[in-house]
Amino acid sequence: MNARFYAPDAHASGEVLALPDDEAGHLTRVLRLKVGDTVRVFNGRGGEFEAVIDSAGRNGVEVRVGAAREAAREARVALTLAQAVLKGDRMDDVVRDAVMIGVAAIQPIITTRTEVARSALEKGSRVGRWHRVAVSSAKQCGRAVVPPIREPLTLETLLRAVAAERSSGPTLMLVEPGAASRTIALGDLAPEAPRESTLVVGPEGGWAAEDVAAAAAVCGLLTLGGRTIRADAMAAVAISALFARWGEF
Amino acid sequence: MNARFYAPDAHASGEVLALPDDEAGHLTRVLRLKVGDTVRVFNGRGGEFEAVIDSAGRNGVEVRVGAAREAAREARVALTLAQAVLKGDRMDDVVRDAVMIGVAAIQPIITTRTEVARSALEKGSRVGRWHRVAVSSAKQCGRAVVPPIREPLTLETLLRAVAAERSSGPTLMLVEPGAASRTIALGDLAPEAPRESTLVVGPEGGWAAEDVAAAAAVCGLLTLGGRTIRADAMAAVAISALFARWGEF
Repeated sequence: MNARFYAPDAHASGEVLALPDDEAGHLTRVLRLKVGDTVRVFNGRGGEFEAVIDSAGRNGVEVRVGAAREAAREARVALTLAQAVLKGDRMDDVVRDAVMIGVAAIQPIITTRTEVARSALEKGSRVGRWHRVAVSSAKQCGRAVVPPIREPLTLETLLRAVAAERSSGPTLMLVEPGAASRTIALGDLAPEAPRESTLVVGPEGGWAAEDVAAAAAVCGLLTLGGRTIRADAMAAVAISALFARWGEF
Repeated sequence: MNARFYAPDAHASGEVLALPDDEAGHLTRVLRLKVGDTVRVFNGRGGEFEAVIDSAGRNGVEVRVGAAREAAREARVALTLAQAVLKGDRMDDVVRDAVMIGVAAIQPIITTRTEVARSALEKGSRVGRWHRVAVSSAKQCGRAVVPPIREPLTLETLLRAVAAERSSGPTLMLVEPGAASRTIALGDLAPEAPRESTLVVGPEGGWAAEDVAAAAAVCGLLTLGGRTIRADAMAAVAISALFARWGEF
């Protein structure tokens, strides 16, 4: 398949539009494509098109949008990953993997034991960086949807929102075996796929007892087997397990 | 819980035994533990014990083995991951994740498109390195079993062994959607956990057509959804999905 590029403005065949700077740089400097080469573009909201490079130079790249094409199938369950922010590059890896496996959105959260300060998140414009990771992962995995990265919330705010909304599917907090008195296993979930769901995954240091207690009132507390999974792999394991349970695989 | 160390010679309470050099170094230089401190030791074959540091110095560390303790539960399905060798550190990551999620053994394989030469594998003593990664992952995830890393085989040799043996469970090759005419989805597998199974996962460049054709005669060709999963994350996604299907989670 031709190389794929993120073109958020692509809507319909016939348009000529500029690629974002990152994408233009990837096209010219990394892949060294030229005017007249055929590529694919996707708009991040499910639209995927053939396209031909119309101009490429120092001032950017323009493509002429062609016929609409079928993109990789989206998951039937709109699963939001609410992930406690991890240190350093680890959050990038979680975003990359979650997008590739097929989540609908990512909600970074700040928990009692999150080791990254909120101020650091804002200063470093981490959300923008995670968005770029999501775009890059969507390019690789064939999705035409770039899952939105929401602004970080505290766990408390997230749980309040869960309690207030009438969601059409379960909110599940992933906990260690033995973390709470009433946990559920994957097999306790209804096998029918819900329309949407939220999966809440903790930080490196695990959940504080008060996090679990607060969540217990509004979430299912899900355990996955008896082994301790690394914080940066937990989301991938849990999303895969939920998709398996709900017939997505 | 106290720090855990790999002590392959630990069998029974009352013994005094030396830790392997790597473990002794971790105990003294990283964790800075001293004579009299209490630790846990596991022998890699399912035995886990309390232990007390008996001596610690330049010549190594000896521990006195105490009471047997319960380790993290092993998966009921003895799943062997047959993974095409990946480049650089990526194979280390696959070994780490597969051990943590709970495979019983890892079989490195060489396929048509494997980008690592067999001679390079032998020269670099990669199997020894993957064993150390497996030990380290077992320490972190709480398993008292260190899954064996088998000597690399060609895919052809592996498939011949699968055809010759009467295995008590399915051999499944993970393929891209559309890679073959007759693929199965996760839901096509019987939900009852088999006693054992082998999962065959390909290299960065994917399977060559002849790899898939050769496997089709003796393996189920399993697909997981419509998105393209990165080679270094594929094993974790597939093991998680299979464990979910078989009631392991």
